[in-house]
Amino acid sequence: MKHGVSRQPHYSPVVETSFHVRYAETDAMGIVHHANYVVWFEEARSAFMRANGTSYTAFEADGVGLAVSEVQARYLMPARYDRLVTIRCWLENIQSRKLRFAYTVLDTASDQVLATGYTEHVCITPAGKVTRIPEKWREMLGQTMAK
Amino acid sequence: MKHGVSRQPHYSPVVETSFHVRYAETDAMGIVHHANYVVWFEEARSAFMRANGTSYTAFEADGVGLAVSEVQARYLMPARYDRLVTIRCWLENIQSRKLRFAYTVLDTASDQVLATGYTEHVCITPAGKVTRIPEKWREMLGQTMAK
Amino acid sequence: MKHGVSRQPHYSPVVETSFHVRYAETDAMGIVHHANYVVWFEEARSAFMRANGTSYTAFEADGVGLAVSEVQARYLMPARYDRLVTIRCWLENIQSRKLRFAYTVLDTASDQVLATGYTEHVCITPAGKVTRIPEKWREMLGQTMAK
Amino acid sequence: MKHGVSRQPHYSPVVETSFHVRYAETDAMGIVHHANYVVWFEEARSAFMRANGTSYTAFEADGVGLAVSEVQARYLMPARYDRLVTIRCWLENIQSRKLRFAYTVLDTASDQVLATGYTEHVCITPAGKVTRIPEKWREMLGQTMAK
Repeated sequence: MKHGVSRQPHYSPVVETSFHVRYAETDAMGIVHHANYVVWFEEARSAFMRANGTSYTAFEADGVGLAVSEVQARYLMPARYDRLVTIRCWLENIQSRKLRFAYTVLDTASDQVLATGYTEHVCITPAGKVTRIPEKWREMLGQTMAK
Repeated sequence: MKHGVSRQPHYSPVVETSFHVRYAETDAMGIVHHANYVVWFEEARSAFMRANGTSYTAFEADGVGLAVSEVQARYLMPARYDRLVTIRCWLENIQSRKLRFAYTVLDTASDQVLATGYTEHVCITPAGKVTRIPEKWREMLGQTMAK
Repeated sequence: MKHGVSRQPHYSPVVETSFHVRYAETDAMGIVHHANYVVWFEEARSAFMRANGTSYTAFEADGVGLAVSEVQARYLMPARYDRLVTIRCWLENIQSRKLRFAYTVLDTASDQVLATGYTEHVCITPAGKVTRIPEKWREMLGQTMAK
Repeated sequence: MKHGVSRQPHYSPVVETSFHVRYAETDAMGIVHHANYVVWFEEARSAFMRANGTSYTAFEADGVGLAVSEVQARYLMPARYDRLVTIRCWLENIQSRKLRFAYTVLDTASDQVLATGYTEHVCITPAGKVTRIPEKWREMLGQTMAK
């Protein structure tokens, strides 16, 4: 699992993660089932957190969580079993109570874009109430953006 | 697996399908993982087809396929294990080469909306080239809308 | 989602649950991916609990959980998208600290056996320590067996 | 995704693959859902094939497939989100028409065994008939064992 910082012009750094397409992720059309890109987006967010030396679990340890409030994906080219794919993930936007991550899924060998998408997240208390993103987390995520 | 036609004011009929939330669909937050709603949307489309006496496989038997080109979901309330959920699915739009299904996910007992979303699909040849939706299918799907 | 009690000769009643194969459950071989049968077994256990007027969540509310300690599945015939499948589930064995459920997966229309399997479960405390199955649960599950 | 050959005493080489636990793989118990180990076993087989410079798709290009006929898993310790896990996979047995892979799932940091299991596979024609494993593949897989 490699992750690095892309050199493409972006207002925030991009964290990359790469892995092979699993057979279980394919469907009867012979391609990766579209729901799995949503799982890949999430794994890319996990890699984004790891690249910052932290984790969702640290977030939860601070008594708040990030609930997914919206997801969108556009599918351009199919991915197939055993291909190496790279997911680029960056923080696109951060507000007081919510933030947005964006993603590009590429075929690693050809650099062809397979899909793009975003996810929006709201900060919630353990009781499920929307709350402010803790300053510590804003700073941590902000530093990522300024890297 | 029940399915029926909703009585709510809609320009097209709504096909409903209901099932219990599976334990495997939950995540460490104790709620249904957001990627599973995309799978539920698809199962609702399958029920939509079955309500029309047909199936995706019939579509494929006609030498074309429907590839998912976009998906969007908004998450309002979490779903939990063992709850009965109802997915309402309707054809929102049909063009020459693409169509859009829309969805509402409800908690069956309380009728509370858990999520909403849509999927867009393009008609493709077995080689993956975008093509016109066969007339037979436009009619079949159109009849559904006129029902 | 129907469930009933099988009339086949068995030392304990069999609870059945039926559903359509989801497209997301298929793989590039055009058949249901083998890992999904493990999910179906679990859904059959959920139906078993519901047929007894209870739920895993009730189990957890009593301060214990059932952790899966072993799973085995044998695959005889492939299942395909949109087919109606029936899972038969029964309690095969119950000891002080563990129990075993057994399963048969059938194609509902043809009654052809697609797969068989079992799962073993140990009763655990919230801390993950193996403990005795509470008497209340032994009775409840025993009544199921005696039904 | 690293893979290497284990140094532990084994009659056949062991191919390792490591990856982080995905959030989507957890369930409401806060641990990895047991069905995902079956997916991990499969990903370990894919790594085994890649370590041999080949792939399942090459197998399929030769006009035969490997159908999973049996799977068994024993769960010893739970895996949790974001942990790095290592799957060790080796060919345990090969006969004229079927073969068996075995697996050990470890927590990479602690080397603690989380689960063990095996899968059996029969060689099938595109029509689904059981057939002999092609000599070319027996040799390739045999060389792996002799490595």
